[in-house]
Amino acid sequence: MANYGTFYGIGVGPGDPDLLTIKAARVLNNTPVICVPKSAEEAGSLALSIIEKHVDLDGHEIVELLMPMTKDQEVLRQARETAAETILAHLRQGRDCAFITIGDPLFYSTFSYLMALVEEREPQVWIEVIPGISSVMASAAATRIPLTEADERLAVIPATYGMEKIREALERFETVVLMKLNRVFDDVCGLLDEMGLLERAHLISRCGHEQQMLCKSLEGLKGTKIDYMTIMIVKSNGRHTGENRCPEVA
Amino acid sequence: MANYGTFYGIGVGPGDPDLLTIKAARVLNNTPVICVPKSAEEAGSLALSIIEKHVDLDGHEIVELLMPMTKDQEVLRQARETAAETILAHLRQGRDCAFITIGDPLFYSTFSYLMALVEEREPQVWIEVIPGISSVMASAAATRIPLTEADERLAVIPATYGMEKIREALERFETVVLMKLNRVFDDVCGLLDEMGLLERAHLISRCGHEQQMLCKSLEGLKGTKIDYMTIMIVKSNGRHTGENRCPEVA
Repeated sequence: MANYGTFYGIGVGPGDPDLLTIKAARVLNNTPVICVPKSAEEAGSLALSIIEKHVDLDGHEIVELLMPMTKDQEVLRQARETAAETILAHLRQGRDCAFITIGDPLFYSTFSYLMALVEEREPQVWIEVIPGISSVMASAAATRIPLTEADERLAVIPATYGMEKIREALERFETVVLMKLNRVFDDVCGLLDEMGLLERAHLISRCGHEQQMLCKSLEGLKGTKIDYMTIMIVKSNGRHTGENRCPEVA
Repeated sequence: MANYGTFYGIGVGPGDPDLLTIKAARVLNNTPVICVPKSAEEAGSLALSIIEKHVDLDGHEIVELLMPMTKDQEVLRQARETAAETILAHLRQGRDCAFITIGDPLFYSTFSYLMALVEEREPQVWIEVIPGISSVMASAAATRIPLTEADERLAVIPATYGMEKIREALERFETVVLMKLNRVFDDVCGLLDEMGLLERAHLISRCGHEQQMLCKSLEGLKGTKIDYMTIMIVKSNGRHTGENRCPEVA
């Protein structure tokens, strides 16, 4: 029987190197092959720059996996296949491989696709996922806005879903987190203005990075160019439906 | 001007001591007063047992704050007031205080109430929140179930909200995470059975603890007694509304 390496999916957190978990740092220091996602546009890998403080990279083979920033499903599929085969080649030689990802490996990350491909092709490979601090938790911490209290509900929605879906969520959930804002920021501002929620919306850009930007209200921000790594936390309190908060079962 | 101590809200993660962040461990080791929530029913504090591996408790004053497990809002309010005053007494003497919380401090944690009380009574106190790995991310990692991919939406709902609200979320969101399941587990099983989702529901109990339990389907689990620290991840894929997944704006 082949002696496969273990495949690790490791979340490195939002940007602050000290938000790496102790487990992630230990496993990374003990794993010979570290795979990093990289887009053609990037000069270096952001995930790699995060771990450098706590992982001595000299003793490791660093494998860059090209992940194009595209909506073309066929291009994406091929890039993932190529990346999975690169990883599998190491695993088949019995070498442990870690794929590092910003935030958490199972929350909007390429890792979940690679995990599925590795599992499909070599079902005997042991896969371990080490969770990371997601940008949602880090953004709440940076702005000190409670995400959820008591029996509040939370919705996380890519803003590209369309304004009607966002409106629906704002009407129903006490807290709505919008991801992938950059291309629809003005539309979202328009919707929040209409719903009287501009002052209840908080914007967090590049959380934990040197260029971090926090805005505790959206008043006057319409028209601003928004970074790709920006999320919005709206404390709508589901008030538009006149619902009671905190109902309890007997 | 008074020289206040800093008030830290620190997430210690779901249970595995190694899921503490490097930042949390460093700040805790440097903070003289560590406040731990404790219910009357508990023999010891769970949060405290998590940090013991990486924080030398001998050099610290450990302050237990009684947090009763009750729905009585008046009892809760009084317990929080008392806890906040205990913390404020240290802060006013210039001593840094860390309140530790399982998971993340701003995600269903007592910390957010204490933060609000401290802020209200001593607005000059510097408050810093250090995010932690939430049970949601840890549960996804333990079961290796992607929470969200591409443009998927995530809803987090306390199950006590009632079956109609849960049904609505299952119809609209690709992924639904249910918290606080223990008292309504059978009702939830009935709903999922009716919606044909029993096999798409995953149960994670005491994630990261020694008594961790994972179930990758709910078939046959109705009637089981469920622990307080149990969450459910349902990959409903919003398929009941016939919606297209992954719509994109132009």
